[in-house]
Amino acid sequence: MRAAILGTTGYTGMILLRLLARHREVQEIFPGSSSHAGMALADTDYGISPSILTKTRWHGARLLTTEEIVEESPDVVFAALPHLASASVCAPFFGKVPVIDLSADFRLKDPVLFEKTYKEKPPRPDLLEKAVYGLAEWFTGDIKNANLIANPGCYPTATLLPLLPLSRAGLLKGTLITNALSGISGAGRNVKPAYLFCERSENTCAYGPGKQHRHQPEIKQGLDSVPGSTLDILFTPHLVPLKQGMAVTTVAELARAPASGEVDEIYREAYADRPCVRLTGSRIPETIHVRGSNRCDIGWQIEGDRIILFSVIDNLVKGASGQALQNMNIRFGFEETEGLSLHGEI
Amino acid sequence: MRAAILGTTGYTGMILLRLLARHREVQEIFPGSSSHAGMALADTDYGISPSILTKTRWHGARLLTTEEIVEESPDVVFAALPHLASASVCAPFFGKVPVIDLSADFRLKDPVLFEKTYKEKPPRPDLLEKAVYGLAEWFTGDIKNANLIANPGCYPTATLLPLLPLSRAGLLKGTLITNALSGISGAGRNVKPAYLFCERSENTCAYGPGKQHRHQPEIKQGLDSVPGSTLDILFTPHLVPLKQGMAVTTVAELARAPASGEVDEIYREAYADRPCVRLTGSRIPETIHVRGSNRCDIGWQIEGDRIILFSVIDNLVKGASGQALQNMNIRFGFEETEGLSLHGEI
Amino acid sequence: MRAAILGTTGYTGMILLRLLARHREVQEIFPGSSSHAGMALADTDYGISPSILTKTRWHGARLLTTEEIVEESPDVVFAALPHLASASVCAPFFGKVPVIDLSADFRLKDPVLFEKTYKEKPPRPDLLEKAVYGLAEWFTGDIKNANLIANPGCYPTATLLPLLPLSRAGLLKGTLITNALSGISGAGRNVKPAYLFCERSENTCAYGPGKQHRHQPEIKQGLDSVPGSTLDILFTPHLVPLKQGMAVTTVAELARAPASGEVDEIYREAYADRPCVRLTGSRIPETIHVRGSNRCDIGWQIEGDRIILFSVIDNLVKGASGQALQNMNIRFGFEETEGLSLHGEI
Amino acid sequence: MRAAILGTTGYTGMILLRLLARHREVQEIFPGSSSHAGMALADTDYGISPSILTKTRWHGARLLTTEEIVEESPDVVFAALPHLASASVCAPFFGKVPVIDLSADFRLKDPVLFEKTYKEKPPRPDLLEKAVYGLAEWFTGDIKNANLIANPGCYPTATLLPLLPLSRAGLLKGTLITNALSGISGAGRNVKPAYLFCERSENTCAYGPGKQHRHQPEIKQGLDSVPGSTLDILFTPHLVPLKQGMAVTTVAELARAPASGEVDEIYREAYADRPCVRLTGSRIPETIHVRGSNRCDIGWQIEGDRIILFSVIDNLVKGASGQALQNMNIRFGFEETEGLSLHGEI
Repeated sequence: MRAAILGTTGYTGMILLRLLARHREVQEIFPGSSSHAGMALADTDYGISPSILTKTRWHGARLLTTEEIVEESPDVVFAALPHLASASVCAPFFGKVPVIDLSADFRLKDPVLFEKTYKEKPPRPDLLEKAVYGLAEWFTGDIKNANLIANPGCYPTATLLPLLPLSRAGLLKGTLITNALSGISGAGRNVKPAYLFCERSENTCAYGPGKQHRHQPEIKQGLDSVPGSTLDILFTPHLVPLKQGMAVTTVAELARAPASGEVDEIYREAYADRPCVRLTGSRIPETIHVRGSNRCDIGWQIEGDRIILFSVIDNLVKGASGQALQNMNIRFGFEETEGLSLHGEI
Repeated sequence: MRAAILGTTGYTGMILLRLLARHREVQEIFPGSSSHAGMALADTDYGISPSILTKTRWHGARLLTTEEIVEESPDVVFAALPHLASASVCAPFFGKVPVIDLSADFRLKDPVLFEKTYKEKPPRPDLLEKAVYGLAEWFTGDIKNANLIANPGCYPTATLLPLLPLSRAGLLKGTLITNALSGISGAGRNVKPAYLFCERSENTCAYGPGKQHRHQPEIKQGLDSVPGSTLDILFTPHLVPLKQGMAVTTVAELARAPASGEVDEIYREAYADRPCVRLTGSRIPETIHVRGSNRCDIGWQIEGDRIILFSVIDNLVKGASGQALQNMNIRFGFEETEGLSLHGEI
Repeated sequence: MRAAILGTTGYTGMILLRLLARHREVQEIFPGSSSHAGMALADTDYGISPSILTKTRWHGARLLTTEEIVEESPDVVFAALPHLASASVCAPFFGKVPVIDLSADFRLKDPVLFEKTYKEKPPRPDLLEKAVYGLAEWFTGDIKNANLIANPGCYPTATLLPLLPLSRAGLLKGTLITNALSGISGAGRNVKPAYLFCERSENTCAYGPGKQHRHQPEIKQGLDSVPGSTLDILFTPHLVPLKQGMAVTTVAELARAPASGEVDEIYREAYADRPCVRLTGSRIPETIHVRGSNRCDIGWQIEGDRIILFSVIDNLVKGASGQALQNMNIRFGFEETEGLSLHGEI
Repeated sequence: MRAAILGTTGYTGMILLRLLARHREVQEIFPGSSSHAGMALADTDYGISPSILTKTRWHGARLLTTEEIVEESPDVVFAALPHLASASVCAPFFGKVPVIDLSADFRLKDPVLFEKTYKEKPPRPDLLEKAVYGLAEWFTGDIKNANLIANPGCYPTATLLPLLPLSRAGLLKGTLITNALSGISGAGRNVKPAYLFCERSENTCAYGPGKQHRHQPEIKQGLDSVPGSTLDILFTPHLVPLKQGMAVTTVAELARAPASGEVDEIYREAYADRPCVRLTGSRIPETIHVRGSNRCDIGWQIEGDRIILFSVIDNLVKGASGQALQNMNIRFGFEETEGLSLHGEI
C-alpha cells in the first residue's frame, strides 16, 4: 500500500502519520501540505521519530504538493483538511483512487441541510450520494466497496455508537438529551484566542447548544438511518481542558421496559465481535482509558423509564484519524485494527 | 465580630480563612482543627500571608481545639467538616451562637430521605426543622433570623439558582435533565487514588448519575420548595480536570410558550438586585469568569419547546465558603458582599 | 485618585483593573484600549463584576481612546502595553502625571544595550535616565519621587529579590546559574500556535537560554546596581504548563563561608518589614502559595561552597500588575499593600 | 518469549504491560501483583484492551501471585516494585532467569553509599557487583550478558545521556549545575496529599536539591564510570504539572574551547546509530515530542566558556519501562526498538 495524506501538519494529519508509520501493509506514505510544501517533515513535526522516517519513501523527503502526490498515484488518499476546502483539493483523486475524507464535505446527504449547516453550498453535490458515511461499525458493508468515504465527526461517532443498537431494537423514543464534553484538540490546530492555554486552562463551558452545532444534523442523519426511527436529539457540547478526549452522556426515554438483560444482549449482538468497541455495562467509562486508542467504550444505566448512555473516545483517534485508518483497513480487506492501538493510557 | 472556623485545614476552611481575613467587620478569627490542633497556622497553610496574621488574634497562634474555641465564645461558628461528623463537633455551639454548617448534616428536612441518602440516621434529627437552608438568594428572610444555617451543596446551588425563578413562574414541567461538570476540589481534600493528579489530568467522566448522587435529593427538595411544583430531575455529575469550577447545563420542558422577553423579565425580577448573580442572557457563561468569585452567572436559550439553562460557579466559593460568608452577612445585617470578591479570573 | 490604564484588554491590564477596583483610594478608573475603544468593558472582560462597575465612573462606560483619557487628566497612568509600543502611547502623559510603565521601554539605562536587546533603538532615549526602576523593595526611595516608573519584568523581579541582599553583603561571587520556570501567561495574550492549549498542555521546555532572553540584561543591570558587584549570570528560562506562576532556582558560589545564621539575618534585615516578601528559610516555596498574591516567597539552602536560592511569584501580580500597584502606593504615600492580596491560593 | 511482570498495577507495570503486549517476540505475559492477586487484569486496568488480552495466556486470567509466576518459569522477569521491596520479591528468580529490576535496589554499587542514600542496608549486597547498570546506550555490551539488570532512574537517564559523551571526550570540568523538571508520575502511584490533582495543578516547585535526592548518588556514580572523570554535580529536581515528561537542563564548564563542530561530532559518534537518542543540535527539545516514546532528545548550546545541555524523556518510558524493554531486547538479541514507540505526541 502506498498512502497519501493531504494536510499533514494539522492534528489529524499528524496522528494519521503516526498510525500509518506502524501499519504493516503500508510501505510508502506521501505527506502533503499546501502551507508547508517543500519543508522537511522532520522540521514541521518534532515528535516523529527520524528512525521511522528511514523506513519510508519520505526519508529525507519534504512535504509534498498535491500535484506531486498526484504523480505518485497512491493507492489511498486521506484528506485531513478543513471543511469546505477538502473537496476541491481532493478533486484530482476522485474516481481514480479511494479517498477517505476527514472533513465534513461529504457527510450530509441532503444539499439543503448542508447549506443550512455550513452556510455554503456543498462543494461537490454530485458526489454526496456516492459518498459512504464511514461510521465503521455500522456501515461496514458499504465501506468495503466505497471509493469515497466521509469519515464521521467526533461528536457523531461517540454519540451514535451507543444509540444505534438501542434505536434499531425499538427501545427508544422521544427527544434524546445529549451532553458532550470535548477536549480542546477538537477545534483543530486553530490559532484563535479562545484556544490559548491561558483561556482554556482551569475553564469549562457549554457552547453551540441545540441545533446550532454543525454536528447536530450529522447526528440526526445517523439516527435517521435506522428505519422507522422518530428520534430527535437536543445536543449540547462543552469544552473541557483536555487535549484529547470526548465523553458523551445521553439521556433517552425508553419506549418500553426492556426485559432483564435485554439491553446487554442488544449491545453484545451489535458489538461483541467488533474490536474497537468495549462494553463496560453499568460501569461508567473514563476518557483516559481510551486516550490514544481507537476504542469507543460504552456503558449504560437504566433510571426509571429512561436509560442513560455513557460513551468515551479519543476525539483525534476513533473520532478522526483512527477511524479513518479503520475504514481503510475495512475497504482494503486488512485486519480491522491493523496499525491501530486498542490500549488507552494508564 | 469574632468568627470561628471548625475544620480550617480542608479546602473550604482554607477559603473561609482568606475570606474572613479581608472582611471588615470581623476582628478575630479562631481557626479550629481536630487533626492539627496546636500547630501554627502558618505551618499548615503556606498560602496565608503572615502579614495578615498579625492583624488578628491568631497571630503567632496555633490551630485551636473545639474546646478552646468554646471558651472564646465566638459570635459565629462556621463548620467546614465532613458530612456526619459536623453535627456532633458543632454540638457545644447550638443554641448559643449562630452556626453556619457547610456539611450536609442539616440540609435535608426529611429524616427518612436523609438516611436513605447518607446511609446513616441524621445525627441531630431534632434540629432538622430549625435549620434554614442557606441558598442565599432564595431564603434570605429566613436566613436573617436563623441560628442554624445549612449551607447548600455546590451542585444544588448551581442547579437551583437558574431553575427556581422559572419554576415559580410556572414555566417548567416534567423531568429536568441536568448535566453538571465539577472541578476536582468538589471532592474535598480527599486522599484517594481517584483524585491523584495522574488519574485526573487529561481525564473526564460521569459518575453517580440519576438518584445516586447525594446532592440529587437536596436539589429535589429545593425544587419542591416552590409551591405546586411537580418537577422531577435526572441529575448526572461529571468530573473535569479543573481545580475550582462548576458548570451546570439543564434541559427543561416548557409548560407553555413564554411571551417575548418573559424569561428575561422573570430573571431580572428574581436577581436584578442580587449582587452575587449575573444574568448573561443568551451568552453562555464560562467557569473561569467566576473563579474565586462569589458570583453565579446564568444564561439561557430557548430551543423549540424546551429551554436550556447554563450556570457556573466556583464550587468552593459560591458553592461553599463564599455562600457561607454571604449567609453570615445576611444573618448579621452586613452588606451582602462584604469580604467577598465578585470578580472572576482573567 | 483617578487612575488610567492604557491597554486594558491584555492580561496585565485585566489584572490591574481588578486590583484598582478594590483599592480604597482609587475612586475612578479610566480603562483605555486602542483595539477595543468604544466597546463596553463588560463585553471584553466577562470576569469583571458588573456590581463593581456601578461603583466607578466606568459604569456603563466604554473602553476609552488615549485621547479621551488625556482629557480626563487622571492622577496616575498605568501603561500595560507591548514593548516598543508603550513609550509613544504614553507620550501625552510624560511630565504631566506619574506614569507606571509595565513594558520594557524604560527598564534598561544603556541605549546601546537596549538596542542590542530589543533590536530597535529605545523609543525615548531622553527619558531613560529619569525613569526609576520599580523593583519595589530595592528602590523605594527613588520610587517615592518618580514620575516615570519602569516596572520590572517578572523574571528580573523573582531573580533579583533573593540575590540582592546576599550580593550587597558580599557573600556571592562568580557566575550565577539561574533556572526559571514560567507560567504561560508570561507570554501575554499572544495568539501564536506555541501558546495554544494543545501545544502547552502536558509539555515543558527551556527556551532562550544564556544571553538570549531579553530579561537577561535587565537582571544583569539589577545585579550591577550593587556597588562593587562583579556577579555575572547565566539565565535559562523554561515554559511550564501553569497559567500564572514563576519559580526561580539560582545556584551561586559563596565568596566566603557565612557565619551560622548569617544568611537568615541578611534576609531578615532586607525584608523583615517588607510585607510583600516572605522568607521561608530552608523550606522551598511553591508557586501555588503566591498565586494571585503580590508576595515573593524566598527560601535558601547552603550546599557545600554554594548556596541555592528559591523564589516564587505570580508572574502577573508581583511580576507585573501587582508590583505596579505597589509602586503607585509607594509613590503616592498609601499603605504599600493597599488593594493587593497577600494570600496565595489553597 | 514468556515475560513476567512483578508489580503490574503501578504506573511502570501498566506501561510495561502495554509495551509487552505489542512486542512481536513475546507470546505470553504473566502479570504479577501482591496487592491485587486473583483479580481480573481487566478490572484493575481499564485502559488495557480486552481484544489484546485474547492474544495472550492471560486471557480471562487473573493477576498472579509471585508463587504462581515461579511455577510458570518465565524467560524474563521485570520487577516494577518499590525500592527496598523489590529484591526480596525477586529472590526466587535470581540465578534462574534474567531479572530486569526497575527499582533502585541494585543501582548503586557501593553498599555504604546505598545505606546513606536509602537509609537501609542494601537488601542483597551479594548481588550489587553482578548487577549491570542498564543505561542502554552506555553499557550495551554488559547488558547483553547480564542476568540482573538494574534499570536506571529517570533523572539519571535524562541527565547522563547528554553528559557522558562530552565527559568521555574530556570536554567538561568542575561542578555541573543540573536542574530537572519532572512530571508527577515520577512519584509513582503514590497516594499522598502532595500528589493530589488539587495540590499539583497550577503549581510548581523545587524539592530535594543538592545531595538530598536519592538520584544524585546514582548520577554521580554514572559520571564516575568515565575513566578519569572528576566531575561533580549539584542536582535540583522540580515538580511540574505534567503527567509524563522530564526535561533536564545542565550547565557545564568547558575544560577547553571545543573546535568548530566538535561537539556535534562527539554526539554523532556516540549516538548516530542509536535509535532511541535524537540529536536536535541547537534546537531545544520539548517533552511533548517524546511523550509515550522511548526516545531521549538532546540539544546543546555553547555560552561563553560553558555549555548548556538540554534533554527530554518520558519519565515512564525511556525513564523506566521503555528502557527496561530496550534492555530486554539487547539482552535477548532482538531488535533494540522492538515493541517500543519512537514517536512522541503531536
